[in-house]
Amino acid sequence: MIYLDNAATTYPKPENVYVAMDKCMREYGANPGRSGHKLALEAGRAIHNTRELICKLFNIDNPMQLIFTCNATDSLNLALKGILKPGDHVITTSMEHNSMIRPIVTLEALGVEYTMVQCDVSGMLDPTRIEKEIKANTKLIATTHASNVTGTLMPIEKIGEIAKINDILFLVDAAQTAGVYKIDVEKMNIDLLAAPGHKGLLGPQGTGILYIREGVVLQQMKEGGTGSKSELLTQPEIIPDRYESGTPNTPGIVGLGAGIEFILKEGLDKIQKHEEALTGYMISELQKIEKIRIYGPKDEKKQAAVIAINIGDEDSSEVSYVLDKVFNIAVRAGLHCAPIAHKTIGTFEQGVVRFSLGYFTTKDDIEKAVDALKKICDELEQA
Amino acid sequence: MIYLDNAATTYPKPENVYVAMDKCMREYGANPGRSGHKLALEAGRAIHNTRELICKLFNIDNPMQLIFTCNATDSLNLALKGILKPGDHVITTSMEHNSMIRPIVTLEALGVEYTMVQCDVSGMLDPTRIEKEIKANTKLIATTHASNVTGTLMPIEKIGEIAKINDILFLVDAAQTAGVYKIDVEKMNIDLLAAPGHKGLLGPQGTGILYIREGVVLQQMKEGGTGSKSELLTQPEIIPDRYESGTPNTPGIVGLGAGIEFILKEGLDKIQKHEEALTGYMISELQKIEKIRIYGPKDEKKQAAVIAINIGDEDSSEVSYVLDKVFNIAVRAGLHCAPIAHKTIGTFEQGVVRFSLGYFTTKDDIEKAVDALKKICDELEQA
Repeated sequence: MIYLDNAATTYPKPENVYVAMDKCMREYGANPGRSGHKLALEAGRAIHNTRELICKLFNIDNPMQLIFTCNATDSLNLALKGILKPGDHVITTSMEHNSMIRPIVTLEALGVEYTMVQCDVSGMLDPTRIEKEIKANTKLIATTHASNVTGTLMPIEKIGEIAKINDILFLVDAAQTAGVYKIDVEKMNIDLLAAPGHKGLLGPQGTGILYIREGVVLQQMKEGGTGSKSELLTQPEIIPDRYESGTPNTPGIVGLGAGIEFILKEGLDKIQKHEEALTGYMISELQKIEKIRIYGPKDEKKQAAVIAINIGDEDSSEVSYVLDKVFNIAVRAGLHCAPIAHKTIGTFEQGVVRFSLGYFTTKDDIEKAVDALKKICDELEQA
Repeated sequence: MIYLDNAATTYPKPENVYVAMDKCMREYGANPGRSGHKLALEAGRAIHNTRELICKLFNIDNPMQLIFTCNATDSLNLALKGILKPGDHVITTSMEHNSMIRPIVTLEALGVEYTMVQCDVSGMLDPTRIEKEIKANTKLIATTHASNVTGTLMPIEKIGEIAKINDILFLVDAAQTAGVYKIDVEKMNIDLLAAPGHKGLLGPQGTGILYIREGVVLQQMKEGGTGSKSELLTQPEIIPDRYESGTPNTPGIVGLGAGIEFILKEGLDKIQKHEEALTGYMISELQKIEKIRIYGPKDEKKQAAVIAINIGDEDSSEVSYVLDKVFNIAVRAGLHCAPIAHKTIGTFEQGVVRFSLGYFTTKDDIEKAVDALKKICDELEQA
């Protein structure tokens, strides 16, 4: 199978991820941060090791400011609901995933105002449009780093400046970029950084992260055992404990640490260049096929390794079905949990066929995918 | 190492759990319920398979009523916050874990009333005391099935009857019993059943479950992508999707399924009998040691495989430290995230040394633990 669904979950993972998880399960599968025995301490150390690796990747000073969650949706809910109170205003964009939009719409019912800044038809955001929407009660700017539909990269460095100048918190959803693009929370003025562990960070499903800038205090979503301040009936205020109730996903977090070790060893630059090169190549090849309409910037420097297309007016699900059944190529079709993004690029009815590349995607994979699309177009021609 | 910390996390897991997780990671590590390609479908089927196995274990009719969470704390927060609204009253007990108490105390600040029914010094609950606390606005009775401190089993069948007669919802925290004791949600009138995947159910950390009786509707805690109703900006109402936003922990859930397969194959009866026999044996041996004070019912028929002790007035952490360092025996000491339970049994200052047994614990392990305790007592005698 040619796997081009990396924007959903990267697959395969580096070999060291599999090995680290299995070793954790078999050799130190105890509960971290609760008991004081050797196995529990080893589990605790492994989790702290992953925290430190993540901090290294994103230039986070204090590992205690890095929270483990169960996925990026969990991280975004915690960030949005932890910050926004009735009367607050949040600015977001028309290219967001439902994991950003749906919590915001839920908060609206509780008295939070939101403004959704319109992106252009390729998903590009003019940051001055964000600036224009700032009001006295604007508490947060919340944007994705790259669209999960078109890959379109958002100008987060510029938005971070705007947020800082205006003393507004800045939340970035790095679901499609973490582990591939250089993200520096200091340089980019990011106050809250959410990412899944199972995409570019090359960890397993069941993991996610939320960075919270020191001094930013969120209302926690859950209370429970933290292994600390056991005597209190209220949630301890120390972090990360405050936001990490209950037993963590130790094998998952260990796998995530192994994924990040792999990334740091290969180097972000090399990973980004590889994905950019293949994205550029695929776009240029697809542009030669008449019936194919490509969405997004059509420029590997302006988009993550996500390429959304349609063939004429063909149903996107039908095309992806044929890619899977006939050509053994895995992609995703339909609305991709981002309805406003589809309205922005004009595909709310048709959806898109999304090819998403990863570090393990090869030029040969892309050639086969392009070839398959050519054949599908030819078939349709003759039909 | 002799691992007697199974109440925190069971360890080791059955071999098939390790194998199933590794196979999932390596062979079908795609995103379930989103894309339609072969690997995504295989991941989706694997998750559904675990849902069905869990339903079989707890006599749940409809697998769609079984929600995956990231741990029991997550399940309890969803259940409590999803059900209780300002003005509602909830009855709980003095033997609960902080994962039950802390969310309830948080809800109190929002206008939810609670009554904590006092258990006796061995943690036993007289169910008529619950009945006496029922008021017009009592919406929920929420109790653990067995104390994580003393193992004391609660009369949940009787409480379920009381709840049903009075038309009150019944939430059971089965953190210490699921996978060992027969729990039948129909027979026991359980409306909401919370359990971790990583304890008696023999799955990995990072997994938890919440059963929600058909017709009981909770407010979700999170919104996001569900792979369903992508066009909506509001959370879909269909279940389990409504409560399962974001990418699930597929390898974890697969591991949990393998754990439950193992349990169903061995048989709950056999597992329960094994743990009861060892618990009874350990209690009887410990009762012969003068300096040791045992808490809880001291009766394997009245408690789960958890044995809490102290040696005279020795600090519980000190004893467990020696057990680990000198005897290579892993236990947990201190307050065990259940401060009111410690007040109930009179160990709020000293904590307890907790021995918790699992299906893989052997008689030899118990003999060695008892022998170690004897030696520690002798040392103290001579000191």
